[in-house]
Amino acid sequence: MPEQFTPKAELDQRIHRLQQMMAQHAIDGALVIEPTNMFYFAGTMQSGVLYVPAEGEPVLMVRRSIERARLESTLSCIVPFASYRTFLAILDEHGLASPQAPGLEFSIPMEMYGRIEKYVKGPFKDIQGLVARCRAIKSNYEANLIREAGRRQVDNFARIPSLYRGNMTELELGAAIEQQMLLLGHHGMANIQSWGSRLHIGYVSAGENGYYPHMFDGPGGCKGICPAVPELGSQRPIQKNEPVLIDLAFGYQGYHVDMTRIFCRGQLAREALDAQKRCLEIQQWIVELLKPGATPSQIYASMIDKLQKLNWTEHFMGYGDRAVKFLGHGVGLSVDEFPAIAKGFDEPLEAGMVLAVEPKKVLPGVGVVGIENTWLVRAEGDAVKLTAADDDIRELPL
Amino acid sequence: MPEQFTPKAELDQRIHRLQQMMAQHAIDGALVIEPTNMFYFAGTMQSGVLYVPAEGEPVLMVRRSIERARLESTLSCIVPFASYRTFLAILDEHGLASPQAPGLEFSIPMEMYGRIEKYVKGPFKDIQGLVARCRAIKSNYEANLIREAGRRQVDNFARIPSLYRGNMTELELGAAIEQQMLLLGHHGMANIQSWGSRLHIGYVSAGENGYYPHMFDGPGGCKGICPAVPELGSQRPIQKNEPVLIDLAFGYQGYHVDMTRIFCRGQLAREALDAQKRCLEIQQWIVELLKPGATPSQIYASMIDKLQKLNWTEHFMGYGDRAVKFLGHGVGLSVDEFPAIAKGFDEPLEAGMVLAVEPKKVLPGVGVVGIENTWLVRAEGDAVKLTAADDDIRELPL
Repeated sequence: MPEQFTPKAELDQRIHRLQQMMAQHAIDGALVIEPTNMFYFAGTMQSGVLYVPAEGEPVLMVRRSIERARLESTLSCIVPFASYRTFLAILDEHGLASPQAPGLEFSIPMEMYGRIEKYVKGPFKDIQGLVARCRAIKSNYEANLIREAGRRQVDNFARIPSLYRGNMTELELGAAIEQQMLLLGHHGMANIQSWGSRLHIGYVSAGENGYYPHMFDGPGGCKGICPAVPELGSQRPIQKNEPVLIDLAFGYQGYHVDMTRIFCRGQLAREALDAQKRCLEIQQWIVELLKPGATPSQIYASMIDKLQKLNWTEHFMGYGDRAVKFLGHGVGLSVDEFPAIAKGFDEPLEAGMVLAVEPKKVLPGVGVVGIENTWLVRAEGDAVKLTAADDDIRELPL
Repeated sequence: MPEQFTPKAELDQRIHRLQQMMAQHAIDGALVIEPTNMFYFAGTMQSGVLYVPAEGEPVLMVRRSIERARLESTLSCIVPFASYRTFLAILDEHGLASPQAPGLEFSIPMEMYGRIEKYVKGPFKDIQGLVARCRAIKSNYEANLIREAGRRQVDNFARIPSLYRGNMTELELGAAIEQQMLLLGHHGMANIQSWGSRLHIGYVSAGENGYYPHMFDGPGGCKGICPAVPELGSQRPIQKNEPVLIDLAFGYQGYHVDMTRIFCRGQLAREALDAQKRCLEIQQWIVELLKPGATPSQIYASMIDKLQKLNWTEHFMGYGDRAVKFLGHGVGLSVDEFPAIAKGFDEPLEAGMVLAVEPKKVLPGVGVVGIENTWLVRAEGDAVKLTAADDDIRELPL
């Protein structure tokens, strides 16, 4: 795993795109603070703030650690930062005017906002949507990292059956998978942006735990380790002939793919096999629509319409009224990126977007079947499967 | 690992303490949203809001998942929640008036605050400090869980040498430790409250990586996996005769201990052994002061004074001006709890507080030595070591 510092040309291009969007939204200076967003624009993740002016070079102000920022970031202007008290003075030193219409990520905590607004005059505009739209379209550099994450994830899934030992619990298998992922270059834990959500690496959920209720906004369920940590897997042993839902985010150098396969010790019942087949069909229908110009909201509406006609919406994407209202989501530096394949996402898909598509079906009393792969939208037409493994149900040793 | 649901009497006591503090601060209703805080008062961690009135039973309003909240929480009033639009109506249904002086965690994102203030009239007071002070004092129930985390952590550290294989990298050893921790009942990842900080399980840092600059506010350093994920360990092989700093948070049923030991393949130089001895002395000096009534700020000041007289402050608690300005920190449902042993923490220690004490010293060009244990402050006097293992430097196989 070579040391990867984000090239200057790459950062310049990202910052330029943000500046174009800022101009469209009449924002003349943006404060980027959220660590993942800072990493996207600066190539380093520090405590501090990246100031992006309407035009010209950004200024990376770093509280901790300035040394590390200078090691990792290819930006040219990196300066120490003690508090927002000195923010405008630093801008002035760099020939930058105080922003008149500043932008800020409204994902920052209220208390931090309180510290900022004392010294930087608002009103502020929320730049989360702009940053999400920048991040949604992956460059070749980024697509290659996600491709690599995909290759390693395929390898990871292929090795899961060999990790299984008799009478393993969900958690034991999950722990073995986690170690394997780290050794395969996984970067440690899945990054989620939604406030208050955590995912660890994903989860192993056997049988009815596949739809165990969970605060996480996803079609699958997870009982997890304990009420304080509803993640990864529970002490429930994996039984014969039940579907085992393994949904894992693999991250490489910051970039993720999301992938789910159904595993089984033995043989699934006819009902589960039929539902699995239907999920694969739905995946195929969706993926045929993943082209520049298509809108996620239309893809979603057309699929739900189709499934209603087939009378197949009950417990689709979750148990009863716990079902989630999306069929997929953007993936990149976090696993919950823009856009979702859902109502309200009316902007057309663009080449370079990366989306996880995850049709899943709950069979009450049995478990969950379905599929998830991560796809790259291309100008040339057909989306490319970045988790390029077959979609079959995988065997665990009996 | 038995299923642990927080008993009703425990929740009642916690809520009662919060209500007492609310009365002192003229807050007549508190909205608790942050998942760890919700878990503390409700015994479940869901998307939604726990409303604690000035007096009487709280109302847990749950967006997702109401089923899971009802399985896990022993609170009596748990209701579905769609949006803050209905918040006051729900209070009214339960005979509760709209709060006139409401409290809110100012750690919530600005955008969430925007959704709340539309329907709940402010001005709001920040309740983070109140909640932190509630959480700082552990009940017997909590102390027993932390004790159990300590026992398992001791076991974990004892087994680390047997995980080491020739030429392992920091990351390989870290991955093996992480799997072992999960199998020993560790709950998956360390919980940190500071916004933007992540820790995974802690880190393995060999030689000079022990003071590699890092955004995290701690005395040790960590190069980590990559710039996007500066955590756990790097691809650097562990060399002979260098200090290997292993700083890990073990979590059991939501509760953590924090512990550090120095490992070595071979023999440390005299200079490192002397510095290690001094760190153990400093630990002893601090721990003798961990009694109800002592103030953390005074402990900090007296230690720094003592070390200045000994001319021993250079690179103590971090390299050069990267040194952190604390000697320890509260531990519980997160690893960065109130209080810190630092300037500004002038409220006296109380029985039931749990603190990690971590004197560490950087030896430039060599690495980091030192110690970290987690201690329970007791009414009876001496603090109890919850990470009850010897403090010696541990051998890794050559």
